[in-house]
Amino acid sequence: MIPSKQDVAAALERVSPYVHKTPVLSSTLLNEISGASVFFKCDNLQRGGSFKIRGATNAILQLSEEQRTKGVVTHSSGNFAQALSLAARSLGVKAYIVMPDTAPEVKKAAVRDYGGEIVECETVLSVREATAARIQEEKGATFVHPSDDTQVILGQGTAAMELLEEQPDLDYVVTPVGGGGLVAGSALSAHYFGKDCKTIAGEPLEVDDAYRSMKSGKIESNITINTIADGLKTQLGEMNFPIIMKHVDQIIRVTEDEIISAMKLVYERMKIIIEPSSAVAFAAVLNKKDLFKGKKVGIVISGGNVDLSKLPF
Amino acid sequence: MIPSKQDVAAALERVSPYVHKTPVLSSTLLNEISGASVFFKCDNLQRGGSFKIRGATNAILQLSEEQRTKGVVTHSSGNFAQALSLAARSLGVKAYIVMPDTAPEVKKAAVRDYGGEIVECETVLSVREATAARIQEEKGATFVHPSDDTQVILGQGTAAMELLEEQPDLDYVVTPVGGGGLVAGSALSAHYFGKDCKTIAGEPLEVDDAYRSMKSGKIESNITINTIADGLKTQLGEMNFPIIMKHVDQIIRVTEDEIISAMKLVYERMKIIIEPSSAVAFAAVLNKKDLFKGKKVGIVISGGNVDLSKLPF
Repeated sequence: MIPSKQDVAAALERVSPYVHKTPVLSSTLLNEISGASVFFKCDNLQRGGSFKIRGATNAILQLSEEQRTKGVVTHSSGNFAQALSLAARSLGVKAYIVMPDTAPEVKKAAVRDYGGEIVECETVLSVREATAARIQEEKGATFVHPSDDTQVILGQGTAAMELLEEQPDLDYVVTPVGGGGLVAGSALSAHYFGKDCKTIAGEPLEVDDAYRSMKSGKIESNITINTIADGLKTQLGEMNFPIIMKHVDQIIRVTEDEIISAMKLVYERMKIIIEPSSAVAFAAVLNKKDLFKGKKVGIVISGGNVDLSKLPF
Repeated sequence: MIPSKQDVAAALERVSPYVHKTPVLSSTLLNEISGASVFFKCDNLQRGGSFKIRGATNAILQLSEEQRTKGVVTHSSGNFAQALSLAARSLGVKAYIVMPDTAPEVKKAAVRDYGGEIVECETVLSVREATAARIQEEKGATFVHPSDDTQVILGQGTAAMELLEEQPDLDYVVTPVGGGGLVAGSALSAHYFGKDCKTIAGEPLEVDDAYRSMKSGKIESNITINTIADGLKTQLGEMNFPIIMKHVDQIIRVTEDEIISAMKLVYERMKIIIEPSSAVAFAAVLNKKDLFKGKKVGIVISGGNVDLSKLPF
């Protein structure tokens, strides 16, 4: 069930022509503050503004010619909606994006800009799923889940692969965890291509379903979704959970204040725009300074799609 | 008088161990909007948050051992104050920074953070110059001008050198122009190391002293300084003006609205934090689309030191 080393390597080779090899940045001052040597893999500078183009591209590239002519469909109102639209357009494939009719106009506009066809429906998850199923039925489009799809997971892991190519002796790879695609893919990359490199996830305390899932050994849900990290409200999936159980070392929970404080540090000192979800990983490093002290730590900055008029500082 | 090709190459070799080789980024969407292939050399991601560490480092490295033991002095309340402090600290040299007593506390704090010793005085230029002269006298410190110093100019040109190493066949290098150090250094790099690569500067219409200086053939001053691009209010200098006259192709003037609009595009699409002064160069490219159409254009993003609570959008 768990993808092999060859699967991981093949995904990188497959998506590389279609995604940016994003820069790895560091800051002397943030190293001083954290006590670690931190390397930021900047997928906020990725095409579409997040790492999600990696998984979307890998999933589409694994389709048959016939499947490609019929298009792909997903339900998402976040970064995956944009990423699948953009990846599909790059590969000449039609993308149907099921979005809640309450989604902000700016998010709909971004999907349209990237060539996706929006199918609106009610916000309720069951209705969104039913709408996606109808598109599969009517159009013959292939459903691509934003995080719980093996090809998507493998694609998301390519950011950590590239990071390890530049910094082969990382002690830790740290990512945020939401739906689980990024951390699962990164954990595979670290396991197969790192040198005893552990994978750790940061998660908002307010939506600590992944933390609780690792403790209980089964997929837990969130009761509240009261976090600024709006990309991390979803729960883990059947495909990524076994990978996470096996290859993720631990999940560090952080408060909303810690997220905002880490985000501000990155803006002010690194001069890059990151989403609150991305700040969660750096917040986790700052939260457990003893663990990371003197270590080489790679952080996957997951995205930069944020409303600049609503910065929390 | 004008530095040689060897001088330019030597500066890059000299400063490289002490500065980041900053990434060159591009955006499909900004290429579509501009009609050109635009490569952003991101010195907002440089140490100290601007290109100025390059010139400061080069100037200090050209001092004798005896001069280094006595330190350096400059008057600046902007990026050069931070850059000289940081460069000096890296090289074990004392830096005295003459700043107006009206300078914002945040700027003073940044200089102190980087190890610079602040000497406060009245805002008037003559007093600032006299204060710097006194430090030279009392401490034996060497004065380093923020932009009108040959070694500083050569150091500032290294950003364009690195850009040309990655993109050798640029048609244009575009930078903002304020005191003239960056554009003069970049023009030397483009002249000696480009393939028929022209250098163009962007300048706010509100402070178009460099534009008028190129027209009249003598250094002109600004009457008003009513621009958001606070790094570009100063006038050209005796050292950089001859280089600009000889090697800068033209200066494109842009309005405040054009600056803010270009800045917003870069934030939203490139996910990087840039100063208004840096946006002036991209605004110039958008202002003269016919000139740049289909061309390969390198833009030096000069810095990212900006008050995030006061973004103009």
